[in-house]
Order: sequence, then C-alpha cells, then structure tokens
Amino acid sequence: MQSPTSSMKAAVLHAAKDLRFETVSRPKPDAGQCLVRIRANGLCGSDIHFFEDGKLGPFRVTTPYIPGHEAVGTVVETGPGVSDLAVGDRVVIEPGVPCRKCEYCHQGLYNLCPNVVFMSAPPVNGTFAEYAVVDTDFLYRVPSGLSDEEAALVEPVSVGVHACNRASVRPGSSAVIVGAGPIGLITLMVARAYGVTQAICVDVIEARLQKATEIGAHAVVNASRQDAVSAVMDLTGQKGADYVFEASGSSAGAALSPKLAARGGMVTLIGWPEVSEFAYPVELIIERELNVLGVNRYRNTFGPALELMTDGRIPVRELISHRFDFSDVVNAFQFASENRSATTKVVIVNGEEDL
Amino acid sequence: MQSPTSSMKAAVLHAAKDLRFETVSRPKPDAGQCLVRIRANGLCGSDIHFFEDGKLGPFRVTTPYIPGHEAVGTVVETGPGVSDLAVGDRVVIEPGVPCRKCEYCHQGLYNLCPNVVFMSAPPVNGTFAEYAVVDTDFLYRVPSGLSDEEAALVEPVSVGVHACNRASVRPGSSAVIVGAGPIGLITLMVARAYGVTQAICVDVIEARLQKATEIGAHAVVNASRQDAVSAVMDLTGQKGADYVFEASGSSAGAALSPKLAARGGMVTLIGWPEVSEFAYPVELIIERELNVLGVNRYRNTFGPALELMTDGRIPVRELISHRFDFSDVVNAFQFASENRSATTKVVIVNGEEDL
Amino acid sequence: MQSPTSSMKAAVLHAAKDLRFETVSRPKPDAGQCLVRIRANGLCGSDIHFFEDGKLGPFRVTTPYIPGHEAVGTVVETGPGVSDLAVGDRVVIEPGVPCRKCEYCHQGLYNLCPNVVFMSAPPVNGTFAEYAVVDTDFLYRVPSGLSDEEAALVEPVSVGVHACNRASVRPGSSAVIVGAGPIGLITLMVARAYGVTQAICVDVIEARLQKATEIGAHAVVNASRQDAVSAVMDLTGQKGADYVFEASGSSAGAALSPKLAARGGMVTLIGWPEVSEFAYPVELIIERELNVLGVNRYRNTFGPALELMTDGRIPVRELISHRFDFSDVVNAFQFASENRSATTKVVIVNGEEDL
Amino acid sequence: MQSPTSSMKAAVLHAAKDLRFETVSRPKPDAGQCLVRIRANGLCGSDIHFFEDGKLGPFRVTTPYIPGHEAVGTVVETGPGVSDLAVGDRVVIEPGVPCRKCEYCHQGLYNLCPNVVFMSAPPVNGTFAEYAVVDTDFLYRVPSGLSDEEAALVEPVSVGVHACNRASVRPGSSAVIVGAGPIGLITLMVARAYGVTQAICVDVIEARLQKATEIGAHAVVNASRQDAVSAVMDLTGQKGADYVFEASGSSAGAALSPKLAARGGMVTLIGWPEVSEFAYPVELIIERELNVLGVNRYRNTFGPALELMTDGRIPVRELISHRFDFSDVVNAFQFASENRSATTKVVIVNGEEDL
Repeated sequence: MQSPTSSMKAAVLHAAKDLRFETVSRPKPDAGQCLVRIRANGLCGSDIHFFEDGKLGPFRVTTPYIPGHEAVGTVVETGPGVSDLAVGDRVVIEPGVPCRKCEYCHQGLYNLCPNVVFMSAPPVNGTFAEYAVVDTDFLYRVPSGLSDEEAALVEPVSVGVHACNRASVRPGSSAVIVGAGPIGLITLMVARAYGVTQAICVDVIEARLQKATEIGAHAVVNASRQDAVSAVMDLTGQKGADYVFEASGSSAGAALSPKLAARGGMVTLIGWPEVSEFAYPVELIIERELNVLGVNRYRNTFGPALELMTDGRIPVRELISHRFDFSDVVNAFQFASENRSATTKVVIVNGEEDL
Repeated sequence: MQSPTSSMKAAVLHAAKDLRFETVSRPKPDAGQCLVRIRANGLCGSDIHFFEDGKLGPFRVTTPYIPGHEAVGTVVETGPGVSDLAVGDRVVIEPGVPCRKCEYCHQGLYNLCPNVVFMSAPPVNGTFAEYAVVDTDFLYRVPSGLSDEEAALVEPVSVGVHACNRASVRPGSSAVIVGAGPIGLITLMVARAYGVTQAICVDVIEARLQKATEIGAHAVVNASRQDAVSAVMDLTGQKGADYVFEASGSSAGAALSPKLAARGGMVTLIGWPEVSEFAYPVELIIERELNVLGVNRYRNTFGPALELMTDGRIPVRELISHRFDFSDVVNAFQFASENRSATTKVVIVNGEEDL
Repeated sequence: MQSPTSSMKAAVLHAAKDLRFETVSRPKPDAGQCLVRIRANGLCGSDIHFFEDGKLGPFRVTTPYIPGHEAVGTVVETGPGVSDLAVGDRVVIEPGVPCRKCEYCHQGLYNLCPNVVFMSAPPVNGTFAEYAVVDTDFLYRVPSGLSDEEAALVEPVSVGVHACNRASVRPGSSAVIVGAGPIGLITLMVARAYGVTQAICVDVIEARLQKATEIGAHAVVNASRQDAVSAVMDLTGQKGADYVFEASGSSAGAALSPKLAARGGMVTLIGWPEVSEFAYPVELIIERELNVLGVNRYRNTFGPALELMTDGRIPVRELISHRFDFSDVVNAFQFASENRSATTKVVIVNGEEDL
Repeated sequence: MQSPTSSMKAAVLHAAKDLRFETVSRPKPDAGQCLVRIRANGLCGSDIHFFEDGKLGPFRVTTPYIPGHEAVGTVVETGPGVSDLAVGDRVVIEPGVPCRKCEYCHQGLYNLCPNVVFMSAPPVNGTFAEYAVVDTDFLYRVPSGLSDEEAALVEPVSVGVHACNRASVRPGSSAVIVGAGPIGLITLMVARAYGVTQAICVDVIEARLQKATEIGAHAVVNASRQDAVSAVMDLTGQKGADYVFEASGSSAGAALSPKLAARGGMVTLIGWPEVSEFAYPVELIIERELNVLGVNRYRNTFGPALELMTDGRIPVRELISHRFDFSDVVNAFQFASENRSATTKVVIVNGEEDL
C-alpha cells in the first residue's frame, strides 16, 4: 500500500468505455515545476471522445492514462528554482507545454511546436486527479473574483480568444458563429467581448440556439428550418458577415462558412470536421478574397482570458449545466456521453480533503 | 430680402471673438450630394480655439465662415444620382471629404489625403447652421436607438475609435489615457469597448479624474499630486501599460507617455501639443521597442462607431454637461470659452422649425 | 464614312470565335479622363477564354465588345480638370475602375468594390484598339527605362504583387508556386523580388518547369512524375513551404496547395479553378493553422510594380514568347488559342500611325 | 599551469583602455549547450565603446570580462541532450539568450525579455576567445556558400533585418537611411534586399556616402552641405520617404528623421542617441500620422539573415575594411578606436590551431 503522500486518486482511462476511479502514484515537481492540488475540472468533448472511442485524430489509448485538461488548483509544493509562484496560490493550468526552443517557440507560435506535450492526450496524463505537476510558466494566478468553476473554463475560453485573435476581430463588426455547442457558445461570448455588435448563431438544434440567444446572440438561424445563407445575407443587408467562426466541427458547417462571409471577410475554422477532405467552395475564397484561417488550440491567451473573465466580459457561469463531485467522475463521463445535446458544460469539483 | 427656401440662419465667425447668428444663403446639393437639415451639433474644442484666437494650427480666419463639424441631421433634398439615401433619413455627417483619387485615398488612408476638404476649417463652412450640403458617401444613417444628442457625438467618438484602431488594441490588456478632457474621456470609453480590462486615467484636475472614474476607469492618477510614472508602474506590476493614449494635447503629457508604456507597448498621440518640438524621451522608444503612433482625425470609423454606440458600448450621454438651443449658439460659444474645465461636452440643438 | 478623328480600328469580339478587326467610333474623354493612344497590349488568358467560349465566370458576350486590359499608351487628349497628366505622357492603364464611394473603396479595398467597371469584361470595352478613355487616377506614368512591351505587362505583374502583398511575404523564406503558366511564372518573379530565397515550382509540363528554372526557381517538381508533397517536404527539410501560391487554376492544384505548406503557412489562391466546389483538405487548415487567402485581381499595385520593374527586379521581358502587330490581332488570338502551352506571353504592338 | 584542454586564450577587458590577450579557463558545455571553437569575429562599435570608456548605457566594466558578440565557429563538443547539432558543424552564434519563460518569450518577443543574458555585455563573457559555450537553440548552421568573415557579420545584419521587419518594408517603396556607418550601410543593404527601389543615404562624411553609393544607394545627401529635408523632399517628389531608418545614433539624426518621412510613413530608430531626451518634432508625428518604432537588437532574424546572405542579397563582404589575426586582437581594438571614420567593418580571424 502506498503512503498517503505518494499516492492519489485519479480517473484512469484503460480503454474505450473503461474509465476507473483508482489510486495511482502522485507525481513530484522537478526544477521549475509546481505540484498543483486540483480544485475543479471542466469536461471537454475530447475527453468524451476518448472515453467513447479510445481514440481521437492521431491519438489512441494504448496504455492507461488520466484524461482532463480544463483545470484549476492550488500550488501545494514547488520544485527547485521556482520563484514566480508560492504554495497556496490558486492557479489555472495551461495544459500544452511546448519545447520553448524550436523555430515556432522562438516566434511565439508555441501551439505549433512539433514537440508540444499536451496533458490528457494519451499517453500523457491530465488533470482528472487529485494532483498534477505543471511547468511554472504554464500556470496562471487566478484573481479572487473568479470562482473555481469559472476558472476551470479558462481553457475552453482560450480557444475562443485565440480564434478571435486569429481573425483580428474589429469592434463594431458582424460575426456568424456556426455551431452553438460549448465551443460555439464560448466563441459567441468572446466575440461579444471583442466588440462584435451583430452576432448571429447558426445551429440545427433549437435548444442550443435558445441558449445562444440567452447569452447575447443578436439573431439565430436554425439551418434545419431555413436556408442559412439567405438568412445570414438578409440579416446583414446582403453583405455577409465580417467574421465567420466555424465551431460545429462538421464538414457541413465548414463548407457552409465561406458562403456566409462578406467580401474580404475572415472565416475561422475551430471545429475539427469528421473527415479530413470534403467538398469545399474554394472558388468563393478567390471571388470574395476571403481569409480562411485555421485554429489549433491557442497561444498566449490564458492571461487575457483571465482578465476578460475577471472583468465580467465572458460570463462562462451561464454555460455550466451540470456539476459532479470528483469521486463521481466515472458517472460524470457516463452522463455526459449519454446526454450530449442536453449538457452544455459539465464541471467536476474536487473536495477539500484528499480522497 | 432672401426667400425662405434660399436662406438660412447660421453661426458665422467673422474674426476672433466675433461670432454672429445671422442669415446666410442656403447651399444646394449638387450631383451625389444631400441637403441635410441639422438637428444637433456638438461643440468641439477646435471651434472654441477659432472663436478665441481666430486661428488654429495652419488655419486662420480671414473671411467669415461657419464653424461646427459634429453634427446630425435629416436629409431634406437629394442631388442628382443619389440612391443610397432618401429624404427623411436621419444621418450623421463625416465632415472631412477627401479627393478619392490620390494615392492615399486609393489605399483607404483618406484622412491623409492632401486635398481633403474639412467642414469648419476656415474658409470651409461647417454645421452650425440650419442646413448643410454633404457628399452622400460621407453621410451615415443613424439607428433609431440613438438620440440626436448622442448621434452628434459620433464624430469625436470616431477619434477614439481611430486611435484604438491605430494602436490595434487587444482585449484583456491595460491602457493609460493621459488627459481626461472630452477626447480623453471618449478614448477611455472606446478603449473599454475595445476590451481594455485595466484602464488608468492621468490628469491634473481632480474633477476630470472623478468623471473618469464614473465612466469606467479602473484607477486614476493625479499627476499634480503624485509621480505619474511610479504610480502607473505600481498599478501595472512594474510592467507599464500595454497601450498609452496621449489626449491631453500638452507637451508635458506627450513627453510623459512613453515612460508609462510597457516594453513593446503602443504610444498613441492624439492631442496636438502647444509647441511643435520639445524634449522627448527618444532613447526609451529604442530601449523598450515602443511604437509611437500619430493620430490625425480618423478614417473608416463612423460605421463602427455608430454600431458600438447603438449597442450601448460607448455611453456618450454621460459626457454631455450642457445643452443650448441653436438660436442661443453665440452664448454657447461664450459659455464654453469661459468655463473650459467645468464643461465636458456642450451640445447645441436645432429646433423643429426653420428660424 | 467617319472622320479620322472620330473613328478608330479595334478588335471586336462579336461572339465565340468571331473576332473582327474593324472600325468603331473613337471614345472621347470626359471630365477627369484621358484619351490614350494604345502602344502595346499583352494578351491575357481571359481574353482567349472569351474568344474561345464567349463566356468566363459570370460574364458572357452578348453584344460586340473590345477585349484587352494589359495596355500601355500615350496620353493624346485630356478631359476637363485633368492636371496630373499631360498630352505626351506615356502611361500604363489600370483597367478596373471602382466607384470610389462604397465601404470597400473607402477602406482601400477597391478591387472588392461591387460597382467596379473592368475594361474588357463584356460589355465594357477594353484596350485592343487604337484608343481608349481612362479615368486619370488609374493611369500611371511609365519611366523611360521600361519598353512598351514590358510596360504592357504591369497588369499581370500586379496580380503577382497583390498575391505577395496578401501573403505578407517575408524575405528569407521559402515559397512553392503551383502552376508555371504566365501567372505562375510572374508570381515566381515577384516572389523572388519580395525576397523569397527558396522558390520551388510545381507543374506537370516539363517545358514550363524549364522556363521556371531559367527565370530563377531554385527547384522544380514535375507532379506528373513524382509525388509533389513528398518532393516539397524533402526540399524543405520536412517542414513544408512558408508560402504556397496556387497559380494553376485547377482544382487539383488548389487541393494540393495546403499539403505543401508549413505549419502556420500562407496558402494564396490566385488561379480560378474549373469548378466552384471540390474535395479540399480542410482538416489540414486547422491542424497546421494555415491561412488560405483568396486573390481577386489587385489593388494599389501598379505603382510598386512599375518601381520594381524599373529597378530590374522583375525581368518580364523573359516571358514574352511571341509578338504581333495590332493589324494582325485576329491572328494573334487564333495563334494563342491554338498554341497554349507553347506560348508564354504574347504581346501585340500598335504602330506609330493610325490605321 | 592549466592543461591545454581546460584553458584558452581570450581578449579580456579589465577596465577602460586595458584590454589584455591572456589565458583564461575554457568553459564547458552543460545540458543543451555546445562548446564552439571560434573561427572569426566582427568588431562592433559597442565593443569599442567599452574599450574606450569602460561603460555603455546601463552597463559598466566592474570585473574583467571578454568582449565580442559577432562570431562564427565550429562545434567541438556537445553537452548532454544535444541532438540538433553535431561536432564539426560550422555555426553562427546569436549572442542574446532569453529566459524562454516570461510573457515576452512566450509571445516570441524574446529580445524584450527582461532576463536576457547577452554575451559581451559585462560581466557576461563574449566571443573574443578561442572558445565559447552557447545554448544550442541560439546556434545556426552556416551554409557552405558563406565564408567565415561573412558569417561573422550575420549578427549586425540581423539588426538591419529586424529594423526592416519592424517597419514592415513593402517592395517598391522608398527609404532614407540616416547615418552611413556600419549599421546604416547594413540597413541600406537589407532595405535593398527587402525590395526598396529608392534608397537614399544621409550622412555628413563624404567617404561614407561614397561607400553607400557603391553598395547600392540610389542617391546620397551630405547634410553638412545641403538641407537634408528639402533634398529628400526633392528626391521623393515632395512626398517624403515611405520609410526612414535612423542609424546615426545621434540626437540630430533622430530629430531629423520624422521630417524626412511621408504621411503615414514609418520612422525606425536603430541608433542609440548620445542623450536620452532631446528636442523632437512630436507634432509632425501627429500631423503626418507617422509610426515611430524602436529597434532593440533583433529576434527571429538569424535564419532569414543567413538565407538572404547565402542567396547573395546582402553582400556584406563589401563592408569589411580591415582584418586582424586573433593574436593581434589588442591592436585591432586600438586601431579601430583610433580610425573610426576610416574603418567600416573590422574582422578578426582565429587561426586553425589553439594558441
């Protein structure tokens, strides 16, 4: 039996559908690292994908690993040479740690670093655990104004912030968000915080569009009931939107996006479609001189995202539909997997005591 | 005596201190132009300058002319070939009309057009009149949600919008606004609308800083009572501000600005200093790799400014301190001239009937 | 019979395959316009398309019109109010004249103006004539160092310049040009002038790749003989190219382009593919965070293109494969249509005397 | 006596004027580092400053240290974990190594890292030695086409590349370089490589302007004989230059720069003036909407600089005026100090054998 200080409880995914709440060894901080006691986690769609299929994109579950990468916690131990953070600091974890030495890292494009180590991408362990070890420069102090639940969502908010940065959103402009799932709704919130004054959401599920309206969409379009292109053109005076964000993660949504954009507009692709190649309106990119921009996670966004959330510009609380205790993490995965369209965002809260 | 339809009342500046409310001939719209019946005007500091001194920068009052360039009105007649606007449309006037044909105009930098004709820059007539003629492409329809008083302030708001565009303000960042007069307060409001999450105002007049706090400054610094540099450094964790906007129009404010900026920061100069050359911390620009950017009026800002104001992001109403009837325009100038620090923004409202 | 000063010879396309060299009325310059006596024309692929099919994209030949839009000439008459140019000036014609008043024109994005009038797009007359009338602000004085033949090619060079501007090409980087026809070869030359230090051309015709090598390609890839993706990856140290320019105008070339790009790379689409929608590697845009940018003609490029050509940076002379006299223009079209792959660039030279 | 493998010869500056060629201990590579045997060094103006005055800016010689930071060498030993480079590789050294973990480093602005360790800034040792240890990610393989002498100058070329990157130089534009010393001449070369088609050099020493003409300036202005502002205005059709690079390092040059710029132009400050504050034409920045940009060393430039030099775009060889053997390094400093205006660039070459 392991001693209390060298073990911890964690959610370990052994294979598709086989998630176990079990005891594993507790990691130790090395030079420049902190040991963080996790306080809360958001449950990401990618976690559910691994839970359901045992794979996602190029990643496969071949050995047991810990999922989770939307986490807030408290520093409980610092490794040698750590001076920026201290025991007791409440921190958010940026889960992808790059090499800091390649051409991309030198240029600040660290999300494109080919050597990035991303927590929860198997076999790298993530944050559905009592503890995690993280490099200090990828931890961010959380202002007291933010709750644990909100802070856990800095990671998905970062995706929206990076998307808006990539698109260079100008205040006073119009934007269409295709897909009103968690990432789409977050992108809507972030686009509003970036000054978009006409935000239009497109989806095929009425409940999601209802939610979009609640959190600030100026108009919604149900693409299963009306022609999305003509609806958006009508809403924008036949001009099209200055910005289109594709967050549905479907080839249909991706192929629709350029058709919704104004001449010279920005089409930002966030969601990964279910197939790698499909029919796309390429001629329109040329005719309208569009800019089609990919978004792969985020870079340099955790600081600004925390600032915007603390300033009340991104009310993520409104996205949290369900809460679970960490000891109930297996049920949480099960529930989220079985109630996809009914859940917006599930948050899992660790207790104050070790389990 | 002129017939009613060919004359109008106007405020005519004959020389320094000699402003007269008198009858002049009414302009007629040419091809591509509209005749606009003015509904309201904001009173700009430059109008007051001409009133007091008969000159400003390179411009001099040599023949009588009509001041005013912050105006909203109603289209009452359209010249040949006008199809974008119709009689009855409520519109805001962009007062600087460029040649549309030079290198700068072709590039969209029309505020730098050497041939720009700016209403109210003597001898060009402005908008303190019952009517004005304007090229249709420099008129912007006003949404019903904005009052006349608010709409009259789209012009000064445009200065703040252009300043924030020039600086490429990123949401979640910090900004210092030097000078809390009308343009400084507007820049504060616009910077907030652009997502600045730490806005600091610096001035030497307590009442202005009080106003800045009311409209959203997170912190204020009275530079007559404390060292502005160390105050700003303390407020920004010794980093300096990501953005500095100089809106005091003083050499002291301009020379202070780089010292308040973070490494790599943007220093945007809006206010015209009282002298053309003065001691400036040039070495700091190099050491910190600053970007010092001039702002000369605005370009392509009226549309976005209207959008942001209609969306409630820039509550200009809070800046209006005094109102006058158009028939009382001479007193309005007199009052504003004698009560500079007590007035934030004076608005002059034309009645429904011709005078 | 028309008097000499009111008529001229022109190439008039009546319908597909029906190009006639005939006498038409000579246009007269209006206010702000110049009458230009044409000295030389380049023959563009789009001219040939209309000649062969009577249509191209949304345009159709329904009434007789004059093709041609790559032209240099001499100002022989100026309309009222013209002061920038004088009779005798040798000038290049920018053939697309926008409205100068819409949102796009105000922003300098005048190639996206929905009201642009483009010479040679039926039914608008072009430059295969003795004379043409052009708005003065779209005429550019030609330095004496450039021959007529070279100056006639400023228009296609502008396409390459705009493509490199859109891509924000950084000196010292790598670029792949897909397609080594006239526009591909010009883009290669321009990319070199923009500082690209590794330029790779991809085509399926050996003679074109030969030409690409002659004018400065560092490497060429014959996609009919080797796998273009692995060839480019090998040439770039498995990184991919910083910039990819698609100039083949084929769906195969367009779909290939993202696969040749490095993470974070720019994929610029110049050539119009033969179909509007086709299978495209969209997932790669997301995975590699690519920027896929459309190019539709050009804006603000004639001045810089002339500068670069005069400075010897873009040796277009090497692209001219065939010359015809203007009186032989019908044969020129016929020849170019029948010898597509054997012609790089055909230039048609007007004589000194009226015909 | 030290064993051969643990000692080396170096130029050690003990105090102003007190440079000694002596034996010091040889550094050892740690994890991620390489030991580089130096092949050649350029002699920088800042080295001479320390030699003459014992101080420069905030830096002071308080303990003996080794100057030099423009160096090429051969990897002779690799520390643990080094895989990108191997013994025998010829490499250029980027002398400033940042922390890689602060906000600036994460954003790719690593030259602004407050924790940067810069070789040859006392007390950090530099490269006027037989050996130096450098972090592997700041070493760049040198293509065989470049000689040692040329490769040693990648560092100063990087300053020009960064200046042109900061200014976003567009091909086909005009540039004035103020100051035709080594950095000015390099900036001229780089600006030409970036596509500047009208390059004008301003200096007060005729011999330097002569050199500028030799290496590609289209025009030169001797500011001691003519009014530089009117000369530049005449050369640019009264428009001013699109780009101005201040490389004189004098307050006079810095104050002159904005006056040479066109409306909307870029004024890039490279040279450190002799005083920190001085009279500056600030109003002009506003009136012309200039962009005044500081340049502090460089970032992400060594790769592109090597590419451009290898491609023959930056013929630095033409700048080398004098050569010394490393054993003669003390004389080299003495000579350069006494013949400032007669030397363009001094290169010091290490022999093949240990000394």
